[in-house]
Amino acid sequence: MTIFSSIHKPTLLLDEIKARKNLALMSEKILSQGIQFRPHLKTHQSAEIGKWFREIGIKKITVSSIEMAIYFADNGWDDIFIAFPVNILQIEEIIELSKRIHLSLLFEDIKTVSFIDKHISCQISGWIKIDTGANRCGLKSNQFDKISELAKELEKSINISLRGLITHAGHSYRFKSVEEIRSVYDQSVEMLLGVQNQLKQLGYSNIEISVGDTPSSRMVNDFGNVDELRPGNFLFYDVQQFQAGVCLLEEIAVTLVCPVVAVHPEQNEVVIYGGAIHLSKDSHAWGEVQNAYGLVALPAKNGWGWDDKKIVGYLRSLSQEHGVVVMSDGIPEGIKPGSLLCVFPAHSCLTVQAMGKYVNLDGETIHTMLS
Amino acid sequence: MTIFSSIHKPTLLLDEIKARKNLALMSEKILSQGIQFRPHLKTHQSAEIGKWFREIGIKKITVSSIEMAIYFADNGWDDIFIAFPVNILQIEEIIELSKRIHLSLLFEDIKTVSFIDKHISCQISGWIKIDTGANRCGLKSNQFDKISELAKELEKSINISLRGLITHAGHSYRFKSVEEIRSVYDQSVEMLLGVQNQLKQLGYSNIEISVGDTPSSRMVNDFGNVDELRPGNFLFYDVQQFQAGVCLLEEIAVTLVCPVVAVHPEQNEVVIYGGAIHLSKDSHAWGEVQNAYGLVALPAKNGWGWDDKKIVGYLRSLSQEHGVVVMSDGIPEGIKPGSLLCVFPAHSCLTVQAMGKYVNLDGETIHTMLS
Repeated sequence: MTIFSSIHKPTLLLDEIKARKNLALMSEKILSQGIQFRPHLKTHQSAEIGKWFREIGIKKITVSSIEMAIYFADNGWDDIFIAFPVNILQIEEIIELSKRIHLSLLFEDIKTVSFIDKHISCQISGWIKIDTGANRCGLKSNQFDKISELAKELEKSINISLRGLITHAGHSYRFKSVEEIRSVYDQSVEMLLGVQNQLKQLGYSNIEISVGDTPSSRMVNDFGNVDELRPGNFLFYDVQQFQAGVCLLEEIAVTLVCPVVAVHPEQNEVVIYGGAIHLSKDSHAWGEVQNAYGLVALPAKNGWGWDDKKIVGYLRSLSQEHGVVVMSDGIPEGIKPGSLLCVFPAHSCLTVQAMGKYVNLDGETIHTMLS
Repeated sequence: MTIFSSIHKPTLLLDEIKARKNLALMSEKILSQGIQFRPHLKTHQSAEIGKWFREIGIKKITVSSIEMAIYFADNGWDDIFIAFPVNILQIEEIIELSKRIHLSLLFEDIKTVSFIDKHISCQISGWIKIDTGANRCGLKSNQFDKISELAKELEKSINISLRGLITHAGHSYRFKSVEEIRSVYDQSVEMLLGVQNQLKQLGYSNIEISVGDTPSSRMVNDFGNVDELRPGNFLFYDVQQFQAGVCLLEEIAVTLVCPVVAVHPEQNEVVIYGGAIHLSKDSHAWGEVQNAYGLVALPAKNGWGWDDKKIVGYLRSLSQEHGVVVMSDGIPEGIKPGSLLCVFPAHSCLTVQAMGKYVNLDGETIHTMLS
């Protein structure tokens, strides 16, 4: 009897030992440099997994939505950064949260600052969002006029304390070498230090710097003069991170176990019950294939097939429920309808979101805010 | 007061009038040719919306998973085709379903047929899955040896009646013109008629033919000698269908309403609260952009901005919760943090799956099997 004998449909299997090890390594690395570690819990979305973080002394967390902040506040977390531009339409929830926990919000818009300040009556922390190249949210580091106006607005607000500058160098995900990822980090931090220095000259002292995507957090050795790191994905990793050289395959801590429903030896392909509704449609490169949707291994006694460290295939296409696996060296012996395969997801955060819960290697269900 | 004043976060808005009209048109088109209409309910996954189908006389449905079959069986449907290769690991659920409803399953593997036959004790219908070019599941039409072996196995089974041939010409989604879509349909049907004829010569009479992707169901005028059509997406349509010329923009019956959280006039961009976890990461082409993730319109009094039939932008990127909208002609007047935008999804089925419920234009929540 292994865990696999109880699996009958797509199931997100979590290797707790791997995940806890990933967590311990990242935590030690960050804390040993005297930097605050405020992990992003959007990767796992689970109060139960949150306890592992608390066990190793983590007290401050990052989330990506107001709903997620409420969920973790309900589960005992009292220092939460919502690292997403403020959605003023959810002002009622923000007011409630500000009364219950120490809330940190990020801003890039002056009117949003005054709107929030007017509505809340408890102190919160305000951070200025800087876009250091991810090209998504925030003020560019060279828009110093706007940055200083925003700092002024935060400074004059009654209920928001200006705390610092925050960025997510999400463009680090686009690069595929250690050198490039480190260079993205260095450039990002340099921009933030430049802004910090300019603000200092205007009299704003104690401006902190919060950074932290998983590729940089893993690949950079010396984090330099930053105050806080907020990676999330490092807990589970995934094939995108593996392909970027950020993690080893054996460090990936989640796998989607899928039943085989058809075998096509003529095409070296297998069809699995496991599609876009289970894995999401995020993709990764694999050899000459531009868009693959996960890598496939065989189940093994104690989890997945790392005895021989062998990937047997990749997902070439995903429909709503179907996945088509191309087998690299022919259909592995014994694989037939009713067999199980392990799929390492392209992007574990989105797979967790799609599945909503985990099963650990002891067969216990671990819930998330979605289940 | 419009529906929009009650929306504070990403919300899947459903225009019931548009959807019912799409349903009526498709139903009339199929039934008027004397063909059975067995719609695929994976698009909406809702017992409540299922009632609209029953109201116009539909009694047989298609679903894509055993879970979905159980859900609709629980909601009064008693003739259900699971148009997905049999997952033998869920044999317990299949046995239960076979006792409760008239169940149709598709097969491509002989051993799966004997396995199911051995375990069930109530009659079900068995269909042979043919791959007419979608290159996903089924036996190729030229693998007649395998097809006839499968027919023989079904014929000799005690609890499974061989009913016919089924295909999903999913490759019709890859084409962008009426001519190409019609040609895919014609070729598919020709292959199936060929197999039907060969089987007839072996003594199998009354072999039915079941086809039906949305592009063909909409674009083909004369369905020819088929017995059953099973489209699903036609109920809501989406930008992929619009881009393929299958529907008009004003026929799209669902839109994801998203709050604006940042405005970047220098880049002609707006950031919305609405990401991959709401829309899925399916994409569509838009002008010279290879991968866009939805088209954007402004809210209007009675739904979305069709007064001027104007798309104001497209989603150029999606992260977990963020969407970045490129505005085609500058930021529309009045758009600021707290405004709402309507996003027409690339693929409505996956957006429904991600959101799990709808709100109609009267502000009422419509649940699915996921909510």
